Amino acid sequence: MDLKFQILERDGPGRICSFETRHGKVETPVLMPVINPRKMTLPVDELVRKFGAKMLITNSYIIERDGELKRRAAAGGLHSLLDFDGPIMTDSGTFQSHVYSDVDIDADEIVDFQKSIGSDILTVLDIFSEPDFSRKQAERSVDLTCERTVKAIARVEGSSIVACPVQGSLFEDLRHSAAVRLSEVGGNYFAVGGVVPLMEEGRYAELASVILSSKSGLNPAAPVHLFGCGHPLIFPLAVLLGCDIFDSASYVKYARDDRMIFPDGTYDLNEMKYNPCLCPVCTANTLKEIQSMSGDDRTGVLARHNLHVLFSEIERIREAIHEERLWDLAESRARSNPPLMEAFAVIKRYRNYIERQEPLSRRRGLEIVDALSLSRPSIENCVAKAGALRPGQSDRLALITGRKPYFTHFDFSLAREEDLAVSTPFGIIPFSLTESYPYAQSDTAWRGDTQVSLSSYISGFNYREFRIIEGKWSRRHSNVPLSFYLSLVRTVCRYQFGEAAAAALLSGDITVAFSKNTGKLRSVFDSGRHILFFRPEDGLFSLKIAGAEKIASAVPPPAMRVYCLPEAVPFVSAGKSLFSKFVSDADDSLRPGSECIVSDDTGKVIACGSALMNREEMLSFKTGIAVSIRDYHRQP
Amino acid sequence: MDLKFQILERDGPGRICSFETRHGKVETPVLMPVINPRKMTLPVDELVRKFGAKMLITNSYIIERDGELKRRAAAGGLHSLLDFDGPIMTDSGTFQSHVYSDVDIDADEIVDFQKSIGSDILTVLDIFSEPDFSRKQAERSVDLTCERTVKAIARVEGSSIVACPVQGSLFEDLRHSAAVRLSEVGGNYFAVGGVVPLMEEGRYAELASVILSSKSGLNPAAPVHLFGCGHPLIFPLAVLLGCDIFDSASYVKYARDDRMIFPDGTYDLNEMKYNPCLCPVCTANTLKEIQSMSGDDRTGVLARHNLHVLFSEIERIREAIHEERLWDLAESRARSNPPLMEAFAVIKRYRNYIERQEPLSRRRGLEIVDALSLSRPSIENCVAKAGALRPGQSDRLALITGRKPYFTHFDFSLAREEDLAVSTPFGIIPFSLTESYPYAQSDTAWRGDTQVSLSSYISGFNYREFRIIEGKWSRRHSNVPLSFYLSLVRTVCRYQFGEAAAAALLSGDITVAFSKNTGKLRSVFDSGRHILFFRPEDGLFSLKIAGAEKIASAVPPPAMRVYCLPEAVPFVSAGKSLFSKFVSDADDSLRPGSECIVSDDTGKVIACGSALMNREEMLSFKTGIAVSIRDYHRQP
Repeated sequence: MDLKFQILERDGPGRICSFETRHGKVETPVLMPVINPRKMTLPVDELVRKFGAKMLITNSYIIERDGELKRRAAAGGLHSLLDFDGPIMTDSGTFQSHVYSDVDIDADEIVDFQKSIGSDILTVLDIFSEPDFSRKQAERSVDLTCERTVKAIARVEGSSIVACPVQGSLFEDLRHSAAVRLSEVGGNYFAVGGVVPLMEEGRYAELASVILSSKSGLNPAAPVHLFGCGHPLIFPLAVLLGCDIFDSASYVKYARDDRMIFPDGTYDLNEMKYNPCLCPVCTANTLKEIQSMSGDDRTGVLARHNLHVLFSEIERIREAIHEERLWDLAESRARSNPPLMEAFAVIKRYRNYIERQEPLSRRRGLEIVDALSLSRPSIENCVAKAGALRPGQSDRLALITGRKPYFTHFDFSLAREEDLAVSTPFGIIPFSLTESYPYAQSDTAWRGDTQVSLSSYISGFNYREFRIIEGKWSRRHSNVPLSFYLSLVRTVCRYQFGEAAAAALLSGDITVAFSKNTGKLRSVFDSGRHILFFRPEDGLFSLKIAGAEKIASAVPPPAMRVYCLPEAVPFVSAGKSLFSKFVSDADDSLRPGSECIVSDDTGKVIACGSALMNREEMLSFKTGIAVSIRDYHRQP
Repeated sequence: MDLKFQILERDGPGRICSFETRHGKVETPVLMPVINPRKMTLPVDELVRKFGAKMLITNSYIIERDGELKRRAAAGGLHSLLDFDGPIMTDSGTFQSHVYSDVDIDADEIVDFQKSIGSDILTVLDIFSEPDFSRKQAERSVDLTCERTVKAIARVEGSSIVACPVQGSLFEDLRHSAAVRLSEVGGNYFAVGGVVPLMEEGRYAELASVILSSKSGLNPAAPVHLFGCGHPLIFPLAVLLGCDIFDSASYVKYARDDRMIFPDGTYDLNEMKYNPCLCPVCTANTLKEIQSMSGDDRTGVLARHNLHVLFSEIERIREAIHEERLWDLAESRARSNPPLMEAFAVIKRYRNYIERQEPLSRRRGLEIVDALSLSRPSIENCVAKAGALRPGQSDRLALITGRKPYFTHFDFSLAREEDLAVSTPFGIIPFSLTESYPYAQSDTAWRGDTQVSLSSYISGFNYREFRIIEGKWSRRHSNVPLSFYLSLVRTVCRYQFGEAAAAALLSGDITVAFSKNTGKLRSVFDSGRHILFFRPEDGLFSLKIAGAEKIASAVPPPAMRVYCLPEAVPFVSAGKSLFSKFVSDADDSLRPGSECIVSDDTGKVIACGSALMNREEMLSFKTGIAVSIRDYHRQP
């Protein structure tokens, strides 16, 4: 069935999405509590009403093997069995075969059974690929899992969503090719499997490698479930790497061992003396009261605490995506946890894959504490672009020192006819780039070894003379000369659009206008036609239709283009959003936040706007906006 | 009055303490909500009953200037005015003079007024030293504050506790000498003042400098209040630096500005879309409901949220002290906040002061993520001691590579007659130290530049040959030769007690015994007399009385000695704890956790045990245990 999976908000690879099931819509990231149908530690009603659980998961194998449960499920269906009319996912028994190994299940039978009891998302009986599998064993687990998935999709005939498990042990190429195969056979809900041992043993670098090698082969327009991930320590990293769905039996399992889950780790109830938790059960019971409870009472209280913390962490991640701070959250967890930190080395290996999903700018700058923040793929990209940008055409360089805001630090009367650069935590960059993201917005307590040395900067750009100007603090935006603003326009255009587009845009009679309220640069005109709008929030330009035309006439396609299918041309030409299902192709270098030119299939410019997706996302998603239109040919 | 201030638990300079007021005992770290007597946003009853506030602070100047409040306070006293019978502190109006500057208060009058209405802790009318004060202004603020404090202590005649404010702007020497002066005139409750502008502007490095320069001059046996500190972001750092008491008007102030306090910062209610908070008000109201509330309702809800988070953070810090993880907590906050990170540079300047309060070992190892963890004063000390310890007497060195547990990694059949060293995240250390704190307990994802290079190690100890042995993983503790255990005993003794004491201890006929259950080293004997007990939790030794006698007979005092006053000798000789008020003097090199020898005033050894304090603490505290006695001369 069509999930109508779409992105609602995103922060790079991390995303808030929605999709539909036969029992309602789900917003991700989402956590499904695992229900043991034989023994419910917490009643379903409480999970839904008090904890706000929107979706549950239970085990079809347990139901199928239990005469009474099987009878009830067969008679009234799964939703009646659990007394829940929202989406229910079922697992297949694979995990039981991982734990007990002598489990006897027929792959077709368990799929048919899940279908018959009305599971919203049923799971293929996949082969759990253990981390210590040989290559041969891993290949077999992938092959068998893929074969069974193809069969399952056919058997289910669209009545349920089929969770397609990605296996392959620790072999990145196997994981990747398994993901590609499952996408090619039409999978639209993926589950990364075989990862529980990695999480149990704190092997987070290998977990990241498994997630990234799988995810990078998957159709991006489908939810990704990380099977068995139930600790909030891992959630921010997992969402950052593109996982959407989690299930947790941990809330009960940990409770049985007297372990309290917290975002930064797990605490032994019996060793605790003070309890910082504000959740309803910890507010209603003192720590001593909980410690003196016995058996099921204690387990119940701890399970509730654990579940509160788990759900809270999902909310924290959603808010972090909403505020575009997901990297901050994931990094801050890692900075206090050595094994999580190791995962970031794996992220660096996948930097090109991740960078494609990263926005060109964010509402917030970075809080740079160490080299880790600067190693984010999108930031490395910015730094490389800025460092390669010669500040001007002079053969003399003046390096301005100081701290941000660089603009207000600088006494422009000190500048002669020379190129101006400035030393920042990001390295040496053109001075006229210091009002733009991320240079203007970022705070730092850290001056690391990433600073390109001045001498290599000078020799790299063949400067013949240089001097250093000490930046002075001044509260007034006093003496910025107009020539500097023209230099800013040129530099930011080169940085944002590339040399060719910048040259095309800025040919002609260029003038600038300032905001009457703030005095800041606002618009750029060519012979009176508005071609660019300067965004105060990130110091980058929005393209006006006249600017888009100038670029299109000089820079050959597909640069900056998104091609619109004929049926949508009338709407987009009138300023409506371009939905991804109407995109026929796009420039591969577009990123979320890129300014882009929308053309019809003849190449005619019909509008311009801001891309919300990269090319493969535009071509994969069936639902959602690909380009938010900013300007078009308005009728006079 | 005598506060009976004592340490209950400690984690270096951070501590859980208790003290007494006329209205009951207080446990620190503690947060006092600020009560505006003219307008109570939250009723006192709710603060006490729902939030568990144990202590309140209000402003005597506001009461004194309000005819009606003054009349009621004069008639029924402060506790009746606020309807609270726990401890109440009063402020003097100094902060009003900081904010409004044209405040007219008489210093004697406001002290007398506070006394007359029955304030438990009254505050001197000090001179708020602004961060931009000149040296002359700062000197004047210190002088006047000290003079007024002396007068106030005399006027109060012990009926209330007098909060003695430490001023001095940003001048570290002035802060320090002010602290010394206030301690000398008998202050027993100190308040670090003039810091609100630093906290408001995020100037945490300067805040740390103010706290440390003040604190290092104060009598350690008194609570330290950080005036006006009301954000949980700062609490862990402030407690780590030795602050005990906080007051907060922030919960209301922030609420009025629609700002929600969280441990990692402040969020604007109107920009939030998801709320991860589990506190009672956030559980009872959805974010949308809070956002749509108006005026006082919204302020009330946000104030309650803020206060829940503030109190929760105090609990988190107490638990961190209890678990000996306060450094971890403070560092992890700083790792995500550049200005907080800058405070750690200041901590390094005060490393010698801080190191004196740090324990010799902790129940947990370090989670080493970066150079920051290794720069903790106590760890730098360990590393320096271990790096200076020649592994043996051979002129040949074998460097073992691998990871912990180093012991089980190593195949001892590979060792020849040579010195064994191992490369760890802490640098190169003797192999026989790898079962000890912090080397055995610590996890790391980080191999930084602190590793002493092999070549300088070799040349430093004049080795003539060296080779590298690759550590192999082996799960069995199989072939550890007895000679290695003897080497371990010698190395750990040199590391823990120094060369002279180790030589004295290990002269004679030394044998070792192992645990029957675990097979691990347990005891060391000299000719059958039990001299040392090997602690499995930190791999260091506890001294037995026979061992203490051996050291005392060979190593001149005051090394390792604590001197007991005659009246306590009978008790300590029989194994009772040595309380600090019975300590006449002690070795200056003792730290919390040091093994020590307790002598009477003739120098006779009467017992041995573990110090809980350093020398100045033993001599300052009137209440609490100085040495926990482990062994003594038992009657046969």
